[in-house]
Amino acid sequence: MQVEIINTGSELMLGRVLNTHQQWLCRRLADHGYPVSRQVAVPDTGPAIRDAVAEGLVRSDLVITTGGLGPTSDDITRDLVASMLGRPLHEDAEALANIQRFFTARNRAMPQRVAIQAQVPAGTTVLQNEHGTAPGLALQVAPGQFRDSTSLLIMLPGPPRELRPMFDRQALPLICERLPVADAFHCVTLKTCGIGESMVEERLAPSLPPLLERGLEIGYCARTGEVDVRLTAIGDSGVDLIREGEALVRAALGDHIFGTGDDSLEAVVLQLARERNATLSVAESCTGGYLANRITNVPGASAVLWGGWIVYDNAAKERQLGVDPATLAEHGAVSEHCARELAEGALARSGTTHSLAVTGIAGPSGGTPEKPVGTVFIALASVAKPTLLRRQLNPFDRETFKYVTSQQALEMLRCRLLTGK
Amino acid sequence: MQVEIINTGSELMLGRVLNTHQQWLCRRLADHGYPVSRQVAVPDTGPAIRDAVAEGLVRSDLVITTGGLGPTSDDITRDLVASMLGRPLHEDAEALANIQRFFTARNRAMPQRVAIQAQVPAGTTVLQNEHGTAPGLALQVAPGQFRDSTSLLIMLPGPPRELRPMFDRQALPLICERLPVADAFHCVTLKTCGIGESMVEERLAPSLPPLLERGLEIGYCARTGEVDVRLTAIGDSGVDLIREGEALVRAALGDHIFGTGDDSLEAVVLQLARERNATLSVAESCTGGYLANRITNVPGASAVLWGGWIVYDNAAKERQLGVDPATLAEHGAVSEHCARELAEGALARSGTTHSLAVTGIAGPSGGTPEKPVGTVFIALASVAKPTLLRRQLNPFDRETFKYVTSQQALEMLRCRLLTGK
Repeated sequence: MQVEIINTGSELMLGRVLNTHQQWLCRRLADHGYPVSRQVAVPDTGPAIRDAVAEGLVRSDLVITTGGLGPTSDDITRDLVASMLGRPLHEDAEALANIQRFFTARNRAMPQRVAIQAQVPAGTTVLQNEHGTAPGLALQVAPGQFRDSTSLLIMLPGPPRELRPMFDRQALPLICERLPVADAFHCVTLKTCGIGESMVEERLAPSLPPLLERGLEIGYCARTGEVDVRLTAIGDSGVDLIREGEALVRAALGDHIFGTGDDSLEAVVLQLARERNATLSVAESCTGGYLANRITNVPGASAVLWGGWIVYDNAAKERQLGVDPATLAEHGAVSEHCARELAEGALARSGTTHSLAVTGIAGPSGGTPEKPVGTVFIALASVAKPTLLRRQLNPFDRETFKYVTSQQALEMLRCRLLTGK
Repeated sequence: MQVEIINTGSELMLGRVLNTHQQWLCRRLADHGYPVSRQVAVPDTGPAIRDAVAEGLVRSDLVITTGGLGPTSDDITRDLVASMLGRPLHEDAEALANIQRFFTARNRAMPQRVAIQAQVPAGTTVLQNEHGTAPGLALQVAPGQFRDSTSLLIMLPGPPRELRPMFDRQALPLICERLPVADAFHCVTLKTCGIGESMVEERLAPSLPPLLERGLEIGYCARTGEVDVRLTAIGDSGVDLIREGEALVRAALGDHIFGTGDDSLEAVVLQLARERNATLSVAESCTGGYLANRITNVPGASAVLWGGWIVYDNAAKERQLGVDPATLAEHGAVSEHCARELAEGALARSGTTHSLAVTGIAGPSGGTPEKPVGTVFIALASVAKPTLLRRQLNPFDRETFKYVTSQQALEMLRCRLLTGK
């Protein structure tokens, strides 16, 4: 099965916005048995969109476009596709009602021009927009028009908060119905941290081959600080293969597996903490708020996170968390001693059950031969337990440094929550 | 001029990683007069890469590929292209020396298989890799091989920290030399905040038309909390047109313009603060560390940022920054009163010249009719000045909420630093 995504937008091509649709749609489609064979981005001009859609319809069973369905003069995808397919536009009553509801709910008058979004090509399945005004459009393209067999063309609106729920609730069920995968497709992704890709492969090498022979496929995706193990299998035996494969991977990797699918480490740690009535405070020097930011990206974080301190300046370390000036003078702010005093100071001041502290050198400057750029000390203080200390070297750009360091800190907490040690 | 980017990588197509190359390369190319006409991503399989490269070479004057130059079995772009173009591979001595240097500098033995990266197709301009081992490759494709005229094919390694400096220092000069833009290309992007797109257009409408008639082009890119105004012009008169256009835009938008090009609001605010010997502390409730995180993403932030407090829990607001329990009981944590006490408490405790505080409802739950989800109060306390207070409604998903709120907070500080008021 050939699947193609076409992202339209001149702002994409000028590099003014980041294309997040590609990753999101590719992951959703791959995990349902529709791996994307090609993704294309083109500017909002007639010829560019027309060429890309026509080529997609020649090549692919499923073509998904994003953008160009709105009410402004840039939004030409709907009209272009209707004319390419020779399908006249007509007003869809439900889409129009939805647009009117959108404005009524906001106590605003509906500008006349937005009604154009209710114009849909003949023979369209309309995907109503629960979070905006432009409906999505799904069209079956008949054999002979672009190639010998049918294609399914799905057009989605550009804003992610409109596109994502529309895809999950309406487009994906339609795809599964109209383009059933020949053999049932099964997939599980196990997410690991605290272990490198080569070590993951090494641990799995002895036990997996018999399952691979029976048709299980395994893929690895290593990102900084995280390795995904993705198991896929097709056909009726796939359910069993995946179950056996998952059991083997879990046996080989144990607690390095923190979650599955789209789980994030921060959400998993918060869930574990909630289950154990644990609470958390943080003391951040070199990560400068990034650790707390990750944690507070998870809805409901307030059940666990009490708060924290950004102790960027040495004076802030002393004044906010009582780090001993002698510690700073003798060992420096980037030291095991300072990390310990920060974590223990945060624990005492917050009254939480756990406190994470990080202090290090994010760079690009500030390194020394003994403590090069990327050096970081992480401390985890917990009620009635010895403080854990870890030294790491994360020699990356500032933002990657923050990410990897926060990953290591969260992993320390996860292990302690899991094992109680 | 047709310009095409081809991103290779099965991890991209499975949605396991985000394609940041597109935005980065598109912006760099557009700002030098090479707007990208098409971007394509394909998996690491021979036919997919071969088709995409061949189509690109038929269509485009410049084709840039990313990825597939490394030492593993996935990395097949180099070999495929050499065979497509009928160019035998040979070892490039300088590339090999660079690879050896890379390992020597890290006190590691060079694994034999990495030497394969020094194999380059005949007639290649080798772009040495200053931050990794795989060199980039630039090839002139002769007329007649894919189309009637010459194409320039540039192959870049996948890791961003290798690709970006290689592109700026080696690929871009080569592109400008081999594919000079017919007419000199001139471009400036003015970055604004605190003003919506329609208001920007309205303010510019009266004065710009004469310049547009003389050939100036203007484009707007609105992102949440920020509008870019991009002026371009070609030919010898372009320099003057851009200068006159920029003057008009600056006159119409005044202090709403915070920077140009790739400037970020946080970097601009830090620079302003440094120039005025200002220092900063933050008190974050609903943004949960995101504001401090943005600030500390800028190298050298420690010259301005003293530190801060993440006052997520009400107890943290009281205990850390002395918010009056009566304030919380009477007005709630999400109130002007609480924001003021947080900012003034942070100012007193830190000894900085300015303190920013935010308290609000990030959602998805927690809203009331009077204070719906997205409500936020921002306070800016400064030495010897009245505390500024602002109420905003940012009804977005959690991460967008944090971004927009931090944008508004930084903008308040920027205005005070600029005007002294």
